[in-house]
Amino acid sequence: MSVVRLEESRERIRTELDNTVNFWLKYSHDTVHGGFFTCIGRDGKVYDELKYVWLQGRQVWMYCRLYRTMDRFRKPEILEAAKAGGAFLRKFARVSGSSGQWKCAFCLTRDGKAVKIQRTIFSECFYIMAMDELSRVTDDKDMQLEAEQMMEQIIYWVRVDSSGLGRPQLPGDFPVNSMAVPMMLLCLVQQLTEGRGQEVFQKYRELGSWCVQQILQHIQRDGTAILENVSLDKTELPGCQGRLQNPGHALEAGWFLLQYSTEWGDEELQRTAIDKFMELPYQCGWDKEHGGLFYFLDVDGHCPTQLEWSMKLWWPHCEALIAFLMAYSQTKKPELLDRFFQVFEYTFSHFPDAKNGEWFGYLTQEGKLALDFKGGPFKGKDIIQMWN
Amino acid sequence: MSVVRLEESRERIRTELDNTVNFWLKYSHDTVHGGFFTCIGRDGKVYDELKYVWLQGRQVWMYCRLYRTMDRFRKPEILEAAKAGGAFLRKFARVSGSSGQWKCAFCLTRDGKAVKIQRTIFSECFYIMAMDELSRVTDDKDMQLEAEQMMEQIIYWVRVDSSGLGRPQLPGDFPVNSMAVPMMLLCLVQQLTEGRGQEVFQKYRELGSWCVQQILQHIQRDGTAILENVSLDKTELPGCQGRLQNPGHALEAGWFLLQYSTEWGDEELQRTAIDKFMELPYQCGWDKEHGGLFYFLDVDGHCPTQLEWSMKLWWPHCEALIAFLMAYSQTKKPELLDRFFQVFEYTFSHFPDAKNGEWFGYLTQEGKLALDFKGGPFKGKDIIQMWN
Repeated sequence: MSVVRLEESRERIRTELDNTVNFWLKYSHDTVHGGFFTCIGRDGKVYDELKYVWLQGRQVWMYCRLYRTMDRFRKPEILEAAKAGGAFLRKFARVSGSSGQWKCAFCLTRDGKAVKIQRTIFSECFYIMAMDELSRVTDDKDMQLEAEQMMEQIIYWVRVDSSGLGRPQLPGDFPVNSMAVPMMLLCLVQQLTEGRGQEVFQKYRELGSWCVQQILQHIQRDGTAILENVSLDKTELPGCQGRLQNPGHALEAGWFLLQYSTEWGDEELQRTAIDKFMELPYQCGWDKEHGGLFYFLDVDGHCPTQLEWSMKLWWPHCEALIAFLMAYSQTKKPELLDRFFQVFEYTFSHFPDAKNGEWFGYLTQEGKLALDFKGGPFKGKDIIQMWN
Repeated sequence: MSVVRLEESRERIRTELDNTVNFWLKYSHDTVHGGFFTCIGRDGKVYDELKYVWLQGRQVWMYCRLYRTMDRFRKPEILEAAKAGGAFLRKFARVSGSSGQWKCAFCLTRDGKAVKIQRTIFSECFYIMAMDELSRVTDDKDMQLEAEQMMEQIIYWVRVDSSGLGRPQLPGDFPVNSMAVPMMLLCLVQQLTEGRGQEVFQKYRELGSWCVQQILQHIQRDGTAILENVSLDKTELPGCQGRLQNPGHALEAGWFLLQYSTEWGDEELQRTAIDKFMELPYQCGWDKEHGGLFYFLDVDGHCPTQLEWSMKLWWPHCEALIAFLMAYSQTKKPELLDRFFQVFEYTFSHFPDAKNGEWFGYLTQEGKLALDFKGGPFKGKDIIQMWN
């Protein structure tokens, strides 16, 4: 029974992936200035010509990963589009920040002028993912080197001195271990090292282990909750920041940890990944009344201050699908498959746009469409991992 | 009939104001470190000890304005609380920014350490409003001078060189005339000059006129729309930024313009304030299906990219009430009173919390409570203007 249902799910996912890739192949390519449009309406029309760098990087990465790992996407047009996107990124995304360090812009004009720079590491992370994956399909060693150089820059900001990010040091702004940082770095370690051989593997080995330890520090309240921000000495931070929960992030960290535990044969880490980073966020994050995963929660039940806290976003659901399916495939525990199916039902009955293809990204708590665009400042085609 | 209804409205407003002031007098004072708690839950409990500077400034301003202009609030405890809040602000809110300029922090720890500095002028604006109003009830000339010095700093950032705000100059980040800036400056001009005599009046006269011209440039599309951001040469900007509408801001600008037009006896400006800055945002911003004013809209009907675009916030409704009542009291046109009553009905049936006092601030599009706190990073007691 479950086998049939799993096979049906796979078919559905396959169809959605094809539709989604076709949507972006059809509507997002800028044949004049290069790169990809990222602000694309429900019907495929570009509603803003700004090019958001997170999405540029992810699209290059996704085209390359599809091309490299799935036969039906091994087409010249996908490779060419990835190369063109990579060239645009290399030419325009990097801008010189303070003290001569390289930063990546957050947003570019259509012709590549920097509009905004975030004081975080994430544009740089997606730049690295794009460059590394592109270097794999083009066999371009310079590009691989460039990805690793940007990685060194990020590591320096995170572990040595963050002043190059541009935030002023303030006496009340205590350093925080924010889940997103070790989680993204662990993802990058896995990206950069996969199949690269011993030298690269050794280079990032200690960093991978450090990331895992940093992520595990987010298990708080005697193991009953995953908190999004903790202090550098592993304790809970005061106020809203300390009580914040982001179930989608916790689930995402969960499957990164699960991958890592597999690689290292670490069964305790596997259990922790599933029990703490999948089961806990599911328990607190699933909306028992309307279904779907909340965006933000407060561990003590206060109302989060984020106006969008109760909305249902596409990406936490993607993370949950990947996490539970990966956990099931490793453990064969039926309750994990149940979770997968529950998230699957909600996801596929709410997010896909049957009329125009691709997915909507933002629903109200009740599951009603709240924002109808297919691509925006933070939303692109990010559903690839489900098909790996 | 309308007279009776107006009198009933005034009674309701009076009651709400009393309850709201009592709520903050009871729950927000920090008797240990001074200043006011700003993150206060539905039942009055402090859920985060951070002190947001916009709200600190507004609370000082509000206590002083109530004390100065309304007999029933002329109580020693209100004056003392205002002075204590002002002392906390003076001691902790100012931090030295880049190139030796003073900035105001956006957020402080309970004991006054700076947590965050925004790269905008708004913390400074609320600091000025607090200091000027406090100087009026204490007759403190130094404090008045301090308000004017901070005002000089803001004027320099806005009209001469914005680099002191800390944003890097980027080639794709074109300068923008953002409604909030001339609107807040006009409000400050009115604050600083009211009843101060000829010297101060002359000092800010040209600035006031400049602000009005800057605000009027937001009338776009052949006079059919108020847009939130325009170019410095008075034209529409490309993309989402250019098409953005914020009905609450437009209505707020409307009553600032109306006040200015009265002061100068400018009948054409009075008509523009009402026809363009009240009627247009009402027409586009009122939700015909569920009632209430949208937070953000796109003039071409695209979906805004702000996740909270369709939410109903308390403050645009306060601005609308003030705007339409002021416009009616000047013109006696019945349709303006109808607008006032329509907004009144929605506002008073949705935002007040009958159980614990004060107002909720954030509803879904359908009018359901979305966030239940009474005070948060951006919400304090901001409903004073209605009672003036």
